[in-house]
Amino acid sequence: MGLMDEIELRLLPEDDRKPVPKPENLGFGIHFTDHMFVMDYEEEKGWYDPRIVPYGNFSLDPAAVCLHYGQAIFEGLKAHRGEDGKIRLFRPYENMKRLNRSAHRMCMPSVDEEFLLNAIKQLVKVEERWVPANKGTSLYIRPFMIATEAYLGVRPAKKYILSVILCPVGAYYSEGFNPVKIFVTDKYVRAAKGGVGEAKTAGNYAASLMASEEAKAKGFTQVLWLDAKERRYVEEVGTMNIFFAFEDEIVTPALSGSILPGITRDSVLRLGKKWGLNMVERPITIDEVIEGAQSGALTECFGTGTAAVISPVGSLHYKGIDYVINNGVTGPLSKRLFDEITGLQYGEIEDALGWIETVI
Amino acid sequence: MGLMDEIELRLLPEDDRKPVPKPENLGFGIHFTDHMFVMDYEEEKGWYDPRIVPYGNFSLDPAAVCLHYGQAIFEGLKAHRGEDGKIRLFRPYENMKRLNRSAHRMCMPSVDEEFLLNAIKQLVKVEERWVPANKGTSLYIRPFMIATEAYLGVRPAKKYILSVILCPVGAYYSEGFNPVKIFVTDKYVRAAKGGVGEAKTAGNYAASLMASEEAKAKGFTQVLWLDAKERRYVEEVGTMNIFFAFEDEIVTPALSGSILPGITRDSVLRLGKKWGLNMVERPITIDEVIEGAQSGALTECFGTGTAAVISPVGSLHYKGIDYVINNGVTGPLSKRLFDEITGLQYGEIEDALGWIETVI
Ligand SMILES: Cc1ncc(COP(=O)(O)O)c(C=O)c1O
Ligand SMILES: Cc1ncc(COP(=O)(O)O)c(C=O)c1O
Repeated sequence: MGLMDEIELRLLPEDDRKPVPKPENLGFGIHFTDHMFVMDYEEEKGWYDPRIVPYGNFSLDPAAVCLHYGQAIFEGLKAHRGEDGKIRLFRPYENMKRLNRSAHRMCMPSVDEEFLLNAIKQLVKVEERWVPANKGTSLYIRPFMIATEAYLGVRPAKKYILSVILCPVGAYYSEGFNPVKIFVTDKYVRAAKGGVGEAKTAGNYAASLMASEEAKAKGFTQVLWLDAKERRYVEEVGTMNIFFAFEDEIVTPALSGSILPGITRDSVLRLGKKWGLNMVERPITIDEVIEGAQSGALTECFGTGTAAVISPVGSLHYKGIDYVINNGVTGPLSKRLFDEITGLQYGEIEDALGWIETVI
Repeated sequence: MGLMDEIELRLLPEDDRKPVPKPENLGFGIHFTDHMFVMDYEEEKGWYDPRIVPYGNFSLDPAAVCLHYGQAIFEGLKAHRGEDGKIRLFRPYENMKRLNRSAHRMCMPSVDEEFLLNAIKQLVKVEERWVPANKGTSLYIRPFMIATEAYLGVRPAKKYILSVILCPVGAYYSEGFNPVKIFVTDKYVRAAKGGVGEAKTAGNYAASLMASEEAKAKGFTQVLWLDAKERRYVEEVGTMNIFFAFEDEIVTPALSGSILPGITRDSVLRLGKKWGLNMVERPITIDEVIEGAQSGALTECFGTGTAAVISPVGSLHYKGIDYVINNGVTGPLSKRLFDEITGLQYGEIEDALGWIETVI
């Protein structure tokens, strides 16, 4: 890491700041706050000029590597305001670490995790009034790094920007904390072992668009991906990892290299173990899942991710047939996990595991 | 397609134009010309405001979809100046068609192929003095489309920019038209069937960086990719398709969905057939290639792509062993194809197949 200067603050006059949207009109990823964090990187200098400045457009060379070759990564985490007025982050170090793992995989420079987390905290403090208070709402934090060098050869860029933008958000799915209908695709593939599926890199999301558009057109909320090799093993869902609760074990696909190592996934595994449940990371085939849904051995299925926390899956559509899970209603484990994690996030449950970082 | 207006011309005063670099200092993708083509897209309006303007930075919202989710595609073609002073494009319609196929796969809007090709011709005319005259040099043309809507939900964007930038280029590989050393990776995977490997989309290139960096560090020019499923079938090389000449057939991997359908590849197939050669598109395993290299049945191997045209492969490195092909020298078929295609491009050979579009 290069030398890190103090973060420069260049704030908007109070009068020029935007009105904060009403909690019921938040949506997801639409409204951005008044300021953002930015710093620059050059191969010879390392990271420099960290600053909190008014939210505004980047000026990018049309030949910037990120626009042509997709050398771009991001993270996603949230700040929650509790009833006590305090603002809390949930396991933010894990996001910093994953950002650096993504950076490594995509041949991008690493950042000082402590420094970046501090910058995020400072930015959230500056934007305090943007952190909504209603339960279920939060301030979504989007750190991202893009390659900015103007060069059309295919090689890692020598210049980057790291930025953090913020948006107040409501529920991610219009379903809220209600079961979603998932389409299992055996036509499209998201990522293969040996590829970049475990990195939170831009191209993985563009690669998912057609499958999810097709699924949405058929009335489904999201796509469940199968493995690239055999199209048999379950991978993950859209922007969530996935869990299957059977009578004697709660299974999630093992981290094989092609799925994102979700922080919510990890939290669910840890909480489940703490509660004495048999949490298992292993390969699981779609056939086993479907059999379980048919026999009733599969008692619950849910997705995990920062955006929706826990998203119960009411049905899986596979090869033309709908398989209903737990009668299409939210099961007790999904509910317990959702309550526990959101309880921690909003400061209603004691933070026994040291997962919470208080901002203010 | 929406209504297409006339292209607006906003040109730099002569005095503000840059000096053109010397032919020997061109490199690849470093120097950009004075002007670029740009047009905008909005869901309700279609494409609008086509314009040729001074080359300059884009102003992009930090939440622009292309920066987070990699919804971005591009093309690459070249303008060549012949000894007769004329400037020619090589099969440019194929690039327009492939751009639209990439757009479709990435859920992006299509463009009017005729219109875009005309815009490119107009831009090349404006930048005429930038088209270098020495054989082996050319003006590289980079059309690209990026998603610009400021929105952090994962779905296709509603706003795009399409732009064309130009750069005078020399040889793509420092080797020039000399055999390159290729590293066969069985560790990394570029794309899987069901994925986006056949689209010319940004993320595919970011996904290739680590493998090619590791190969370069070991002294190789590029990586040869194997298929995601079995890591046995040959796919393509860096930014080239690949051909294997055996005594009785000249083989290139069939278009399986995971490799880019190269225009040079198609040209080589057509030329070979015209010459009475047995050109075959089929799956080919790395074992067959290695056996051929060992027995001598594999007489030549070469890559094909716009950047290098034909790039003879002198050796393949697989599982720790170097397999030399044709004693590491350029073979007669590589040479003949290179001479034919560059001859057509520079207007030295009669254009019997209707592949050439003259700009001026
Ligand atoms: C592809 C993908 N899988 C899973 C997840 C869940 O990860 P996390 O729990 O860290 O939010 C995400 C992101 O949020 C994702 O983008
Ligand atoms: C991945 C890839 N394969 C193959 C090619 C060759 O295609 P073309 O002959 O159209 O240049 C390219 C691009 O130039 C490429 O990027």
